[in-house]
Amino acid sequence: MSAPEPSARVGGTGAARRAAPRTASAHGSTALLTDRYELTMLQAALADGTAHRHSIFEVFTRRLPPGRRYGVLAGTGRVLEALADFRFGEPELEWLQAEKVVDDATLGFLADYRFTGDISGYAEGEVFFPRSPVMVVEGTFAECVLLETLVLSILNFDSAVASAASRMTSAAVDRPVLEMGSRRAHEHAAVAAARAAVVAGFAGTSNLEAGRRWGLPTIGTAAHAFILLHDDEESAFASQVASQGKGTTLLVDTYDVRRGVEAAIAAAGPGLGAVRLDSGDLLSLAQEVRRTLDSLGATSTRIVVTSDLDEHAIAALAAAPVDAYGVGTSVVTGSGAPTCGMVYKLVARAGEDGVMEPVAKASASKTSSGGRKNAARRLDAEGRAEAEVIIVGRDGEVAAWSPEEQGLRALHVPLVIGGAVDTRWCGAHGVHTAQQRHGLSRAELPRGARRLSADEPAVPTETVTLV
Amino acid sequence: MSAPEPSARVGGTGAARRAAPRTASAHGSTALLTDRYELTMLQAALADGTAHRHSIFEVFTRRLPPGRRYGVLAGTGRVLEALADFRFGEPELEWLQAEKVVDDATLGFLADYRFTGDISGYAEGEVFFPRSPVMVVEGTFAECVLLETLVLSILNFDSAVASAASRMTSAAVDRPVLEMGSRRAHEHAAVAAARAAVVAGFAGTSNLEAGRRWGLPTIGTAAHAFILLHDDEESAFASQVASQGKGTTLLVDTYDVRRGVEAAIAAAGPGLGAVRLDSGDLLSLAQEVRRTLDSLGATSTRIVVTSDLDEHAIAALAAAPVDAYGVGTSVVTGSGAPTCGMVYKLVARAGEDGVMEPVAKASASKTSSGGRKNAARRLDAEGRAEAEVIIVGRDGEVAAWSPEEQGLRALHVPLVIGGAVDTRWCGAHGVHTAQQRHGLSRAELPRGARRLSADEPAVPTETVTLV
Repeated sequence: MSAPEPSARVGGTGAARRAAPRTASAHGSTALLTDRYELTMLQAALADGTAHRHSIFEVFTRRLPPGRRYGVLAGTGRVLEALADFRFGEPELEWLQAEKVVDDATLGFLADYRFTGDISGYAEGEVFFPRSPVMVVEGTFAECVLLETLVLSILNFDSAVASAASRMTSAAVDRPVLEMGSRRAHEHAAVAAARAAVVAGFAGTSNLEAGRRWGLPTIGTAAHAFILLHDDEESAFASQVASQGKGTTLLVDTYDVRRGVEAAIAAAGPGLGAVRLDSGDLLSLAQEVRRTLDSLGATSTRIVVTSDLDEHAIAALAAAPVDAYGVGTSVVTGSGAPTCGMVYKLVARAGEDGVMEPVAKASASKTSSGGRKNAARRLDAEGRAEAEVIIVGRDGEVAAWSPEEQGLRALHVPLVIGGAVDTRWCGAHGVHTAQQRHGLSRAELPRGARRLSADEPAVPTETVTLV
Repeated sequence: MSAPEPSARVGGTGAARRAAPRTASAHGSTALLTDRYELTMLQAALADGTAHRHSIFEVFTRRLPPGRRYGVLAGTGRVLEALADFRFGEPELEWLQAEKVVDDATLGFLADYRFTGDISGYAEGEVFFPRSPVMVVEGTFAECVLLETLVLSILNFDSAVASAASRMTSAAVDRPVLEMGSRRAHEHAAVAAARAAVVAGFAGTSNLEAGRRWGLPTIGTAAHAFILLHDDEESAFASQVASQGKGTTLLVDTYDVRRGVEAAIAAAGPGLGAVRLDSGDLLSLAQEVRRTLDSLGATSTRIVVTSDLDEHAIAALAAAPVDAYGVGTSVVTGSGAPTCGMVYKLVARAGEDGVMEPVAKASASKTSSGGRKNAARRLDAEGRAEAEVIIVGRDGEVAAWSPEEQGLRALHVPLVIGGAVDTRWCGAHGVHTAQQRHGLSRAELPRGARRLSADEPAVPTETVTLV
């Protein structure tokens, strides 16, 4: 096995490696959150000179989960945040060397690695359909291929959660929905799930780290353990009201719900903020609790329900006197679709002569469509979406194509230009912008698109091939 | 809202906070990977003096996912690793203060927080059934309640993956199964999923960070993008063989599989390590590829298949000439059960007089059984599991109860004693031990327990109440 020198155009050198700055991010390097084959492909491509070929990778999904009418793109801001931490520092390089994952020439390239290409895509929060090109990553093969696994991990998970969450906020209409599923997801996935739920309209989350990282509203008061810790419900309620004020939410279903409600109002007075129900037949229980609260004069005390809810359970409670929904398991696990099927495919690359050529896998199933894409949404006279329009063709023509000139709403926005991240999509501001985008895009869907019953995608995906 | 002084027995002081050491872990603090209500409960309990009550929390699941015959406990080692990083450093305390999540007295307690209690539980890799007490956390209410969300996040996710993975390695019999699902999971969940899959018998993973963190074998060679990057399949194969040696695995289904196999052997010779099939009808395709390889003299070249496999697809390929399975989506999403329903329940706590009392929620559904538990497995004369035996009762009696004296196999092992973690359960050694434990425990299940078809739990769970 020979280990030729890397291409001067893309590679670093072993010497450069020693001078590479150490990863200094608060979150640590994201560079090893990837599949081994991204690095072994890089090694072979550096050795044979193809690593520097200009390349376009596209992220899309071939289909929506069965019965779903639209998907919700989430995670774009997290991809951009993770990109800044995608650095191979000394700890990463030393491990790769010790394990002989790649050769010295490749280690040199990795030590100097910075993404210098362009990324565009759907704005975070936008809805998507089969084959929507939700992200386009462009640069040398070497710099783009390394990002595949990380980009997909983030977009697949965050979009799965947001797609489920959007159905829940849609079913809840104007009532707030709160994310409480941290314990049903990997401890870091839980943080991202909280963010994705808020992108899709959730009003807050129980997850503190998500609150810290993106400024999300955090919520939560007490569990059954707090009641059981005390000698009786009365002393638990008194303690909570003393500590949190009468605006707090008291959990009233540890023993008998009716007596729990009475004890709650006895402890806090009729100005109690809310009571929470976490078990039982919520439809009839909420009605009983409302009557009890009203009879005690607590007419403005709200009722929060939180027992294994999903979008269907929320819809079923539409007529119940419920003021807010807390959702756990079903939102963080994508309500039956825990991941999206997004893929990251090479769709065009330069040949030996530098001219861009479309490429695509040809055999059997799992085919994809080669060539650069653009995307737009066609709206009818009322501003309702009629079709997802995918433009495909030779590189130059697609790049020059203008959706606006065709009377279509453009879907691609620039995210990274020449390696520089547009930070408006990141952080708390990015989440806020994404939530607004989602609200607008969902409102634009055809009537009936928000029904929960299984059906086809809400609009067809049309492909226009430019000659 | 008043903010009384914290109890001297459990609280720290505002002054102590300034002297608290900063979090210095490589992975960062895990302390905010939690629900807000854990901290607000703590605040109220510190104020009313109940925070110091000695408490026993128990982790268990009420049921297995529909049709599953057993669950596999995974994540115990990660819980212990995360415990060392469960520290409230200055950045965490400053955010909690700025957001007014808790009062100053509580911040003082958090600044000094170290878990000083005991944790015992099933050994990682052990199989479990409904109501198996897989972990028991004991200490003051304050120190135990804070760990709830983190413990559940880890055990629920890791056990969901391991439970699915065990069905896959079982279906594969002696053929190796490789984890390749990173792109279908949150980027950090992917790392944990790789580990959990290995606990349940997977032979390796594509995830580099999992390789680095726990010494897992990492695998992977090239994707379709690598083939498409090159002018033709021949030059791509030649490049890969030059870079990786002829022992590599060549991906042969980008264009025509038969021509791909011929090109692969032309590039590497009949000593080629393996070919990979990632699409098509794998049963017939594997047979054709085997014939082609044999006809070219490549009789020892292996066939790896990797196209959307789950345990059922693996079982269906039992008669096909397949040498290894690569599994992605289905293992990292728990093959239809993306989380376990594990809960963390207060089952006993000291009263005002210091005497331990069993406690349990009483209303409606979601009831649980109060009191300290012990657990053991009853085996028949052949060493096959007959029943999961749960011992419940007054604290002292249960603690003194010996499974061995009853001829039963004990299931609880000590994990943390007086705050000191038994590090044999952590790191690479912990994963290795867990994989061995899983192999032994699965082999002990009744005949038929490993069938994939939906059925009841493989053994009944019996509860014995000590008087």
